Amino acid sequence: MDETVTTETTHPNGNGGNGGEDALLVFMPSGRRGRFPLGTPVLQAARQLGVDIDSVCGGRGICGRCQVVVSEGEFAKLGVTSKGDHLSDFSAVEQRYGDKRGMKPGRRLSCQAHLLGDLVIDVPADSQVHKQVVRKRAEMRDITLDPVVRLYYVEVHEPDMHDPTGDLQRLEKALTEQWNLPKLDTDLRVIQGLQEALRKGGWKVTVAVHMGKQITAVWPGFHDKAYGLAVDIGSTTIAGHLCDLSTGEVVASSGLMNPQIRFGEDLMSRVSYVMMNPGGEQEMTKAVREALNDLCEAVAKEAKCTVRDILECTFVGNPIMHHLLLGINPIELGGAPFALATDGPTMFWATEIDLKVHPNARIYVLPCIAGHVGADTAGVILSETPHESDEMTLIVDVGTNAEIVLGDKNRLLAASSPTGPAFEGAQISCGQRAAPGAIERVRIDRNTLEPRFKVIGCDLWSDHPDFAKETDAIGVTGICGSGIIECLAEMFLAGVITQDGVIDGAMAATSPRIEADGRTFSYLLHDGSPQLKITQNDVRAIQLAKAALYAGARLLMDRMGIDRVDRITLAGAFGSHIDVKYAMVLGMIPDCDLAKVTSAGNAAGTGARIALLNRSARDEIARVVKQVEKVETAVEPKFQEHFVGAMALPHKTAPYPHLAKAVNLPEPKVAAMGGDDETGGRRRRRRG
Amino acid sequence: MDETVTTETTHPNGNGGNGGEDALLVFMPSGRRGRFPLGTPVLQAARQLGVDIDSVCGGRGICGRCQVVVSEGEFAKLGVTSKGDHLSDFSAVEQRYGDKRGMKPGRRLSCQAHLLGDLVIDVPADSQVHKQVVRKRAEMRDITLDPVVRLYYVEVHEPDMHDPTGDLQRLEKALTEQWNLPKLDTDLRVIQGLQEALRKGGWKVTVAVHMGKQITAVWPGFHDKAYGLAVDIGSTTIAGHLCDLSTGEVVASSGLMNPQIRFGEDLMSRVSYVMMNPGGEQEMTKAVREALNDLCEAVAKEAKCTVRDILECTFVGNPIMHHLLLGINPIELGGAPFALATDGPTMFWATEIDLKVHPNARIYVLPCIAGHVGADTAGVILSETPHESDEMTLIVDVGTNAEIVLGDKNRLLAASSPTGPAFEGAQISCGQRAAPGAIERVRIDRNTLEPRFKVIGCDLWSDHPDFAKETDAIGVTGICGSGIIECLAEMFLAGVITQDGVIDGAMAATSPRIEADGRTFSYLLHDGSPQLKITQNDVRAIQLAKAALYAGARLLMDRMGIDRVDRITLAGAFGSHIDVKYAMVLGMIPDCDLAKVTSAGNAAGTGARIALLNRSARDEIARVVKQVEKVETAVEPKFQEHFVGAMALPHKTAPYPHLAKAVNLPEPKVAAMGGDDETGGRRRRRRG
Repeated sequence: MDETVTTETTHPNGNGGNGGEDALLVFMPSGRRGRFPLGTPVLQAARQLGVDIDSVCGGRGICGRCQVVVSEGEFAKLGVTSKGDHLSDFSAVEQRYGDKRGMKPGRRLSCQAHLLGDLVIDVPADSQVHKQVVRKRAEMRDITLDPVVRLYYVEVHEPDMHDPTGDLQRLEKALTEQWNLPKLDTDLRVIQGLQEALRKGGWKVTVAVHMGKQITAVWPGFHDKAYGLAVDIGSTTIAGHLCDLSTGEVVASSGLMNPQIRFGEDLMSRVSYVMMNPGGEQEMTKAVREALNDLCEAVAKEAKCTVRDILECTFVGNPIMHHLLLGINPIELGGAPFALATDGPTMFWATEIDLKVHPNARIYVLPCIAGHVGADTAGVILSETPHESDEMTLIVDVGTNAEIVLGDKNRLLAASSPTGPAFEGAQISCGQRAAPGAIERVRIDRNTLEPRFKVIGCDLWSDHPDFAKETDAIGVTGICGSGIIECLAEMFLAGVITQDGVIDGAMAATSPRIEADGRTFSYLLHDGSPQLKITQNDVRAIQLAKAALYAGARLLMDRMGIDRVDRITLAGAFGSHIDVKYAMVLGMIPDCDLAKVTSAGNAAGTGARIALLNRSARDEIARVVKQVEKVETAVEPKFQEHFVGAMALPHKTAPYPHLAKAVNLPEPKVAAMGGDDETGGRRRRRRG
Repeated sequence: MDETVTTETTHPNGNGGNGGEDALLVFMPSGRRGRFPLGTPVLQAARQLGVDIDSVCGGRGICGRCQVVVSEGEFAKLGVTSKGDHLSDFSAVEQRYGDKRGMKPGRRLSCQAHLLGDLVIDVPADSQVHKQVVRKRAEMRDITLDPVVRLYYVEVHEPDMHDPTGDLQRLEKALTEQWNLPKLDTDLRVIQGLQEALRKGGWKVTVAVHMGKQITAVWPGFHDKAYGLAVDIGSTTIAGHLCDLSTGEVVASSGLMNPQIRFGEDLMSRVSYVMMNPGGEQEMTKAVREALNDLCEAVAKEAKCTVRDILECTFVGNPIMHHLLLGINPIELGGAPFALATDGPTMFWATEIDLKVHPNARIYVLPCIAGHVGADTAGVILSETPHESDEMTLIVDVGTNAEIVLGDKNRLLAASSPTGPAFEGAQISCGQRAAPGAIERVRIDRNTLEPRFKVIGCDLWSDHPDFAKETDAIGVTGICGSGIIECLAEMFLAGVITQDGVIDGAMAATSPRIEADGRTFSYLLHDGSPQLKITQNDVRAIQLAKAALYAGARLLMDRMGIDRVDRITLAGAFGSHIDVKYAMVLGMIPDCDLAKVTSAGNAAGTGARIALLNRSARDEIARVVKQVEKVETAVEPKFQEHFVGAMALPHKTAPYPHLAKAVNLPEPKVAAMGGDDETGGRRRRRRG
C-alpha cells in the first residue's frame, strides 16, 4: 500500500507555510503520499491519491464523515515534519458542524481544512468508506463495509427556460459531475417525488443509489439515515438485525416466533398442510410476511427511525421458508426429486412481497443450494468462509434438519440430514424449548450418580444452597436441547448408559435414580413438580437424531475421501448453547481436536448481514454456491450403513482419539435389562 | 446481400439426391447461398447462413412460423437446377400442422423439410423475423419488426435428485442452449408460477423475453399469443392500437374520451384545477388510468384475447398528459420555467401505474422534449423522421397547443405555440366538435357569394336536391374545425373578408348573407335551425390562433436561418381532416409547394406503435430528442412581431408564391365598416 503519487500539475500558490508553493502530504495508515499546492483541501488531496475517506455531502461540511487528525512530529522515515499549524485554522463551517453534532478533540473536517505545509494525516477507521465491521470471533474475517445502498448529497442546477431540461436530467448531471455516477436509472416513484424534493430542499437533495446503478430514493436537503435489515427466517423463530448502512453497526435486533408454526411445528408438517389444504401456501406466505412487517416495526422503533428509513433487506432461510417468503408453493420440496423453483440469488422490490419498508427498497435473498440445503446454509458459508480455508472444515447447522457443509478452499460439499426435532427438546418426555426453567447444563457424579444442573434464568448450580430460593419463581420445568445433550453424555460417561445407548439396570444398585420403567430403565434427573426423568425412549430419540447427523457428515467425508477433519463449526442457535465436548461424547460429530470445535452462533443470520453490508459478497456467494457439490443423503446407499454404526456412543467403530484425550470414555459394556439378573457389573475403568 | 457462405464441414451423407454428398442451397430474396450435407433441415441451413426465418418453437414443427416455398426451375444465373423432389416428402409433422392450422399450397415447414439436392428456396415476407410492417403513405419508412417482447418455446430437463438444480436454472440452461439467450434475469412472479407451468406443460414451456434480457412470462406448452398496445393520450381523446407482436399487425383499435375533461377542457384548466384543489392531480391520474384499463378491455375484446395477453405498452402524450399518466404532479408545467420532471424515456412495470394487463408487462413512455413539447411530438418525430430527411421539413401538430418541429438530417428545432382551441371549433359562435351534422367542407360562389357545404354523416353537397332529405335525421348543427378553416378561406377568396380579417360590409350590396351585426358584419352560412353565422369575432378567434401557429413556425425558421421550407406535414386528427390548401390560404402555415404539404394523421400514435414494434426505435428517439434544440416561444421577443404580421390573410408581408399559383388570391382592400358609407368598392381582381 506504500506508494508515491504526485499530482499532475503544481499550481503556484502564495499561501506561505512551508515557504514553497506546494507541500508534502502523507496519509496514514495507507501511507499514500503526494505533493499538493498550498491551499488544497485535505479531502481533495485524498481523493486524488485514492485514499479511502468517506463523504456523503461531497465536501460541503455537512455530513462530518470525512474527519481526520493531524499527526504532529518529526517523521524521519517519511521525510516529513508535520505540524498542527500546517493545516488551516478551525473554520466557521467546522465550528458549526461541531456545535451541532459534536466532534472529538483534534478532529478536523478534511473537506474544510486546507494544506499550509507538510503534513502527516491520520484517517481514523470511522472515516473510511470501506471501514471494517469488526466481528467478535477471532477466526472470522471482518466484514468490509461496502453497502449496496449509498447516499449522495448533491446541488442541482435550477431549471432554465432557455435551455429546457428535465429536473431528473439535471439531477443526473449533478451526480455525474459531483460524484462520478453516470448513467443511473431511476425508479418511477423517485421521479414522482423529485420535483417537490428539489424545490423543498432549495435544489439540494440527498439521493440513495442502489448498486451504483439505480436511484431509489430522494430527500430534500441533507439526509443521512440509511438502514438495512438482515433477517434469518427459521422454521421456529425469525431473527432480524437492523444495520446502519454507513457504519455497518447493528443498531437494533429483534426476534419473534414464526407464525407459520400454527400450520405445523416442523417443515414437513407445513408442506403437508399445503398438500391437504390447497391455497394453504398463500396463508403461510401471508403469515410470514406479516411477521416480517412486525419485525420491521420493532427494529425501527428500537432504532428510533421509521420503516421508511429501511432501504435494503437481505434474507436467509431454509428452502421451504425461502419459497414461502417469495410466494412460491413449496409443494415440490415435499417429495423427490425435491426440485427448487430457483437455486439462484433473487433480487426484487420490497413491495413485491408486501414488505412495508421504503417503497423502493430492494430485497436480496441468498441462493438456496439444494432441495434440503437452503439460503441459510449459503449464509453460513458466507459467514464461515470454508471456501477460503486451508483447513478441512465441517460445518453443522443443527436444527430440525441438520445442514452440513464440508470442505476447504479446493472443494465444498453440502448435504442435509433428517435429524428430526429431538435436539430441540421435542420427542423427549420432559423436553421443552429453551426458556426460563429449562435445564440447560447437567453434571453427574461418576460414583454416586447424583446429578447437579443449571436452569435457564438462574446462574446457580442446583447443589447451591440458594438454588431453590432463586428458582422459586421460574421453577424447574423441563430440559432443553443443550440440557439433554449434556445429560445423556454425562450419563454415558458415568456408566448409566452403555455404548449401545441402553440405560443399564445394573446401576440401580448404585443409585435409586435408576428405576425400572417397564422392560427398560429410566434416570431421575429432578424429583420435583414436575418430576423430570430421562427414559430409554428419550435416549433412543437422541441416538436416532445424532446418528443421522453423524451419518450425513460421514457421507460427505467419504465423498471427499477423508477420515478426519481439521475443524468443526457448530452453527445455529442450538450450536451456540451446547458444550461441544458433550456433542462429541455423544458422537454427534466426528472426532476432532476439541480446540478446533467452535460454535458460530447464528452464522446464517451473519451471512445475511454480510450480504447487506458488502456488495461483492453477493457475487461471492452466488459463485461459491454454484460450485458446491450437493449430496442427497436420502438416495446414498451408504447412508444407512453409516447411520447404524453411528447409533453407538460415541460410535460403534470410529475411533475418537482427540476426545479420549479430553475425557475419560467408559469401556464398552453390556447393559442389564429390566427384570434381568445379569448386572453387567461395575466394569467401567478410567482410561487415559 | 448477395454473398456466398460455405459451411465449415461437409459431412458425408448417403441420402442420394444430387448423386454427391452435399447440395447447393440458395435462399431468396436474400441471395444467401451455401453447400450443405444432404439431409440437412432447411431451417438449420438458413440459421447457418444468417437467413432471416422466424421460429418460436425452435424447429419442432409446432409454431408454423418458418414456412418456405421451393422455387422450381433452371436458375442459370444462380447455377442451380431446383426441383420439388430435391426436398424431402411432406412429413407427418407438416401434415399435422397443416390440418390443425392450415397451410397455403406449396408451403413447407423449413424445420421439417430436408435437403435432398440443389434448391432455390423462397422465404415469404411473413416468415421473416424482421418483416416489414408496411405503412400506407409512400413517403414514410416502413417499420421493421423487432419487438421488445419475443416468445420462445423450450424443452426443459426434468429435475434430477443426483444433480440438484433449480427449475429456473434448468430453464435458463435450455434458453441458452436452444435459443442462445444466456444470462437472463427473471421476474419474481415468473419464478412463483414456474414450477406449475413446467409440470403442466410436461417440461415444455413458452417464455416471453423482454429486451433479450428478462423473462417476464411463462406458459405451459406452446403459446403464441403476444400482444402490445400503443396509446396516444390526448387532452380530449385517448386512442390505442393493439398489435400482434409477431406480425406487427394492428388487430384492434379503440378510442375514448379522456375522462380528465371533467376537470377542465384544455390543459391549462387542468393544471389550474390542481392549483386550486390540492390532490386534484391524483384524481386526474386515477381517471386516466381507469380509462386506459377500459381501453385495454375494449381492444382485448375486439381481438378476442384477454388483457393478460398484453405484454407491452407504449405511450405518447403531451407533457401534462405524460406527467399525469406517470403520477407526477403537473403543477410545475403550469408556469415558467415549465420544468419537466424528466425529459428522458421512462420504462417501468404496468403495475406501477395500475394497468391491468399482464402483471409483468412493461410500460415504455416516449421522452418529452420540453415543458410544452411532449412525448406526442417525440412520437411524431419517430413517425415522420425529419431527422433523416434531406428536405427542410416543417411538422405541425395542431391541437390546443400547436407543437412545431422544423429541420432536416442536420438539425432539428422544436417549439410549441399557444393557438388555443379555436381550430377545434371552440370559441367559434357556431362551432362544435367534429361529429355528425357538423359542416366540414364549404365552397362560396365568387360572384353570388352563395355557399354550399357538406356535413359529417352525408356525402352530398348542400346544393344537391337530396341533401335536405339525407340530412333530415342528423341535421346541420354547427361547424367543426376543418369547416371553419374552409369557410373563412373561401370568404377571403370571395372577397367577403379583407386581408386584415374584416368582414366587408360593402359586400352586403352583393348578397343578403352579409348582414350588419352591431358595429361589425356577419356572414350567414346556413339559414336553418340553428342558424349558422360567421361573426367578426369568429374570424378574430381564428386569426389569433393561426397567427400564433405561423409565428411559432416562423420563429423556428428564423432560428434555422431560412425563409422557406421544402415540405410541410400536418399531424394530428385535425391535420388529417383539413384541406391543406385552405390552411395555407389562411396563412396557418408558410408558403410551400402544395404537392409537398401533406397530412400525417395521428403521427404521434404511429410513433408509439413504432416504439412498440421496433426495439432500436427507442434508442433512436432518445438520441434524437436529446439533440433537438428547444425554443420557448413565450420568451422570444420576435414572437410578438411575427404574431402581428401573421394576423393578416395569408400574411401582411410574407409572399405566398406557391399558393398564388394554385388559387386566385384577392388583392388587398379596405373593408367597409358597419354604419359607414365607404364601401371600399368591388376592387377585387383575379390574379395570375
